[in-house]
Amino acid sequence: MTHNVHEQPWVRLKELLAAGTAPAIESYLDSLPADDVARGILRLSEEERREVLRSLVPKAAARILEQIPESEAADLLEGIDAENAATIVEELPSDERADILRDVHAPEAAEILAEMPPEEARAAQAMARYPDDVAGGLMITEYLSFAQDRTAGEVVHDLRFNADTYRGYDIQYVYVTTPGGLLAGVINLRELILGHEKFAIGDLMIREPEKVTDTTSLDDLRGIFDRHHYLALPVVDSSNRLLGIVRAADVEEALSDRGASDYRQSQGIIGGDELRTMPLMVRARRRLSWLSVNIVLNIIAASVIAVYQDTLAAAIALAVFLPIISDMSGCSGNQAVAVSIRELALGLVRPNELARVWISEILVGVVNGTVLGVLVAFAAWLWKANAFLGLVVGTALTVNTLIAVSIGGLIPLLLKRFRMDPALASGPILTTITDMCGFFLLLRMASAVLPRLAQ
Amino acid sequence: MTHNVHEQPWVRLKELLAAGTAPAIESYLDSLPADDVARGILRLSEEERREVLRSLVPKAAARILEQIPESEAADLLEGIDAENAATIVEELPSDERADILRDVHAPEAAEILAEMPPEEARAAQAMARYPDDVAGGLMITEYLSFAQDRTAGEVVHDLRFNADTYRGYDIQYVYVTTPGGLLAGVINLRELILGHEKFAIGDLMIREPEKVTDTTSLDDLRGIFDRHHYLALPVVDSSNRLLGIVRAADVEEALSDRGASDYRQSQGIIGGDELRTMPLMVRARRRLSWLSVNIVLNIIAASVIAVYQDTLAAAIALAVFLPIISDMSGCSGNQAVAVSIRELALGLVRPNELARVWISEILVGVVNGTVLGVLVAFAAWLWKANAFLGLVVGTALTVNTLIAVSIGGLIPLLLKRFRMDPALASGPILTTITDMCGFFLLLRMASAVLPRLAQ
Repeated sequence: MTHNVHEQPWVRLKELLAAGTAPAIESYLDSLPADDVARGILRLSEEERREVLRSLVPKAAARILEQIPESEAADLLEGIDAENAATIVEELPSDERADILRDVHAPEAAEILAEMPPEEARAAQAMARYPDDVAGGLMITEYLSFAQDRTAGEVVHDLRFNADTYRGYDIQYVYVTTPGGLLAGVINLRELILGHEKFAIGDLMIREPEKVTDTTSLDDLRGIFDRHHYLALPVVDSSNRLLGIVRAADVEEALSDRGASDYRQSQGIIGGDELRTMPLMVRARRRLSWLSVNIVLNIIAASVIAVYQDTLAAAIALAVFLPIISDMSGCSGNQAVAVSIRELALGLVRPNELARVWISEILVGVVNGTVLGVLVAFAAWLWKANAFLGLVVGTALTVNTLIAVSIGGLIPLLLKRFRMDPALASGPILTTITDMCGFFLLLRMASAVLPRLAQ
Repeated sequence: MTHNVHEQPWVRLKELLAAGTAPAIESYLDSLPADDVARGILRLSEEERREVLRSLVPKAAARILEQIPESEAADLLEGIDAENAATIVEELPSDERADILRDVHAPEAAEILAEMPPEEARAAQAMARYPDDVAGGLMITEYLSFAQDRTAGEVVHDLRFNADTYRGYDIQYVYVTTPGGLLAGVINLRELILGHEKFAIGDLMIREPEKVTDTTSLDDLRGIFDRHHYLALPVVDSSNRLLGIVRAADVEEALSDRGASDYRQSQGIIGGDELRTMPLMVRARRRLSWLSVNIVLNIIAASVIAVYQDTLAAAIALAVFLPIISDMSGCSGNQAVAVSIRELALGLVRPNELARVWISEILVGVVNGTVLGVLVAFAAWLWKANAFLGLVVGTALTVNTLIAVSIGGLIPLLLKRFRMDPALASGPILTTITDMCGFFLLLRMASAVLPRLAQ
């Protein structure tokens, strides 16, 4: 029994909820590893989740929200009263606060913000307005900044005096600002403390520090952090006003999330976001929105077969090879898609370098298309003892492999050029075109030599 | 022209190489954004890359190696003489050093290590021996540690005295060790400096600090960093000896790389690693190793069609629906695969929770399978004005969708249980089984009502 309870945190949480022992819930959640917290919470009903949240002090409730996916955290906040929600939101680090509020529906978000101290509400709202893939949406506002005319001694005194407040500021740089709040420079905490205490920090600081603007994109941030080993950089607006700092770890996390979401989108999970704890109809509807586009594309592609029904009826062995050509071309094309997406992400290829990508794919296509074509030709020939069948099937697969790698290599570049998401749309476009071409090639060639096939 | 030169860094690099002006190469590379450096270097021939590397001072050469993928950096090091390579390796941060040496072939790696100072060589070798997805392989050895009997004043003096050496140590914690090198505690740099200088750091430190062992897995590290907002944690061996520190940013980067590699593997890029600058035959062979397995699986699946040739010949309209059922089942199944891989990665489902996943997929499958089945049944009925054709096709697609989501949901869990990579193998297993079932369902049902279909 003990083992079972340990395995299933939601069972224990339900027991504790039934017993109504709030402190026990808090200490139980505290004792769990992070993924067990998420698993335990997400397997409760919506009402039970809200009850857990209400039973915790705001700090502990905020910790729960940080452990679960943002969309789920936003739903949970929408379900409790705004005053309670506001006290929890205030306990969140600034970046998580923005991430979650971005997902809360506008009316509920406004109610929550109205319950917060006006200045914090304004700051949270400003951050939530940035998309989550630019510096403004990734930054945190927990950083140390002082006016340039303060002395090193005054700053050190302030650090000592407010040590408790700053404990969560896990950063070793102090940012120096002009009286107008513009970024003037940066000073290493170590050097500040070791420096002369009578000097103004404006005289000790490094001037014109490396910085990014609030609209710097995630890809550009990756480039900057890759090149220099900064742990964090200051974020300024277009007039150089210091807004926050963006940390390397948060940039990497955002990249990781985007990559995983791209993968899921390429597999037909719209929005990149599905958990099996979501309501059935939400899951079914989202998956279906992708499937219903695909089935229409599939029917269009298959209509090529309908055109050549008579050929097919006369040489029914061809029917065996239709799905093989469709699947194999899809595989070859998807390999090319994956390499293009990687090279785009690494900046190794530009969206306008179509010729380069095409040549490079055609070369691989010739080698692999020939090998696969010969293989399938041989299989067809052996099966029906008909060399013409082998020739038609093999040639169709070889030529269609060339088409597939060309399209697969180029589509991500073209989508990127038109600012569309290569991960979401490449697959369906690829398979529709390669299916149509493959079916046409096989059946058109077969018609031409039909007397030789239908023996 | 200027524009063209700017666009194509490798053209400019070739010119500079031809002119033989080493300092110009260095300053040109220094002026480029990170992705242009990688693009410029990777589009040179192997000999030209080596020439660039030889023309740079070791520090600049090391920076180049950091900008390009590790496998390419390793190849490049193998191509230059060991003495030269060793001076470059010594300039790399400890984690990059281990990452690259891990990819260098053993004989060349041994030669390079032999040219390094023995202690550094031993440390590099020890780190390169760890896999890249445990704390030992992700840690860096640039950290501050002092024996517990040193006073705060002595430590601050050392920090000041060796400020230049420590400049690259972007970390604000000082680790405190026993005389035997065991981890005793940790002290915040800020508190150390603000503390009383006569005290031994052993008395100021936080005892029993949070730490990880060298064998802690990437997933566990993610859990720990998710739960607490540490920037870095100390890494110890099984006897609590301090080995290095692992930073949150490096954990996130490793997760991001793994996710992207998983995506590429699922699309048939074996090893997750292909660049179009690699030799043609290497690219063709790797892709082919995946394609050749797939074509065999495809032929096996399609052989089901061969069994029912006569049915198919009698009702040739069925041939149009074979690729539709194959593709659509693949789509539905891959959606389930993507959700399972996500839930496994987030720790929201355990590999043994088969029943839970199956029920949850079957429910979505019933909804979506019915919708898709009705859609395709309707299309078939309209096309041939034959309700039986619609019934057979629709039922086959509905039932096969249920099979596809079941297999798609469960395969990643089963593969994980047998410690195999779900990203690589889920796709081919899924499509082979769903193709066979789909073809069988459609053609077997069609045989049963053949007189009604072949009108």
